[in-house]
Amino acid sequence: MILARVAGTVVSSHKPRKMEGISFLLLEKIDPVAMKGKGDFVVAMDAVGAGINEIVFYVSGSSARFTPATEGVPADCSIIAIVDFIEKDGAFTYRKDKA
Amino acid sequence: MILARVAGTVVSSHKPRKMEGISFLLLEKIDPVAMKGKGDFVVAMDAVGAGINEIVFYVSGSSARFTPATEGVPADCSIIAIVDFIEKDGAFTYRKDKA
Amino acid sequence: MILARVAGTVVSSHKPRKMEGISFLLLEKIDPVAMKGKGDFVVAMDAVGAGINEIVFYVSGSSARFTPATEGVPADCSIIAIVDFIEKDGAFTYRKDKA
Amino acid sequence: MILARVAGTVVSSHKPRKMEGISFLLLEKIDPVAMKGKGDFVVAMDAVGAGINEIVFYVSGSSARFTPATEGVPADCSIIAIVDFIEKDGAFTYRKDKA
Amino acid sequence: MILARVAGTVVSSHKPRKMEGISFLLLEKIDPVAMKGKGDFVVAMDAVGAGINEIVFYVSGSSARFTPATEGVPADCSIIAIVDFIEKDGAFTYRKDKA
Repeated sequence: MILARVAGTVVSSHKPRKMEGISFLLLEKIDPVAMKGKGDFVVAMDAVGAGINEIVFYVSGSSARFTPATEGVPADCSIIAIVDFIEKDGAFTYRKDKA
Repeated sequence: MILARVAGTVVSSHKPRKMEGISFLLLEKIDPVAMKGKGDFVVAMDAVGAGINEIVFYVSGSSARFTPATEGVPADCSIIAIVDFIEKDGAFTYRKDKA
Repeated sequence: MILARVAGTVVSSHKPRKMEGISFLLLEKIDPVAMKGKGDFVVAMDAVGAGINEIVFYVSGSSARFTPATEGVPADCSIIAIVDFIEKDGAFTYRKDKA
Repeated sequence: MILARVAGTVVSSHKPRKMEGISFLLLEKIDPVAMKGKGDFVVAMDAVGAGINEIVFYVSGSSARFTPATEGVPADCSIIAIVDFIEKDGAFTYRKDKA
Repeated sequence: MILARVAGTVVSSHKPRKMEGISFLLLEKIDPVAMKGKGDFVVAMDAVGAGINEIVFYVSGSSARFTPATEGVPADCSIIAIVDFIEKDGAFTYRKDKA
């Protein structure tokens, strides 16, 4: 899975019916050490109710269909966790409660 | 899913029978902030009736077969949404009605 | 799917039995605007009878098993179309009849 | 599969229920010759009880669901082996007992 | 599929039980024209009995489970062919009998 920041939303009124009601979030991949955006964006389906600016991780490929929100849907990128903290080599690089 | 612009078409008369009737669009991946093409192209099957110059997003991998148009077809890239707008950090980077 | 030129062949006499009779082609990915090779090569199974120097597109991942020639075979890259022409923004970048 | 070092942990209290009890490790991909980190990170589910600083390899894609710990879970990256040694062209580049 | 040279072995005594008896080879991807290594390594499961220094190609993704040696195993990279020769644009870039 890949760490990213919720950067915005993508809206489409023209899509297959089984995608109705799913929200599409614009994610920017981050470097989890510097906690900076990489300028590399993907569109993800939201399986956890993530909000703007939250740090999340998403799952790619067929497993993107293995969430309650995306079963049977043509998803290849689903947010599956809102991150509380990231710890690297004994130090926090991110704490949601201090963000 | 990845954001892209419909840049053209690819035509083939020599392909497996189950691909008959599906249109193949040439997509150029875009940077959704600058809204510029990246010079990186893929061929996608069209599941939504997208037209030249529209901003879309496509799904990759096995999920590319999870649209009404591509079920059972050897697709690894299907357009699943025509984008109305993209909003990043509180501002629109794209609005179809003003494009 | 990705556009490529058939650059050559790869021959193996040591492989799983279900791969007998399938031909392996060496593909060079191309830039579909400049129509130049990128120096990036993959080995593809041939599902359409492609010949040297033809422009094709191939499918990756599990969908590479969704052709008559590759069903049940450990394929992750199958040629599924020989390209007749590529049109980008109103102009042809490739026409097989003029190649 | 890709070689990586266990660099830390990622904690989330907000995720689908079937992910409860699985630990998420922060992996840094390594060059297996120089045995140095590449500064490229992924989040993996742990199927082997790996610990901080261990050298492991992980599996991507649908096969990430083919471990006892991750069956049916939206995983696209699972640690499946703790590495004892890496030998390249007749010489060890890594031995766990001497690390 | 991707061409690579068998560069070494990776040994693990700590892995899921269904991976017992499978050998893990360290592969270096090659440029099939210059026949030089790219310094980019993957760990592959061996489905053909490949030996050190042989030129092989491997399959990625779910198809890595479609060999007799890797069925049901969490594999995303399996060697499926030992290469006899590579021919590009009418000339051999590799012949095993002359290597």
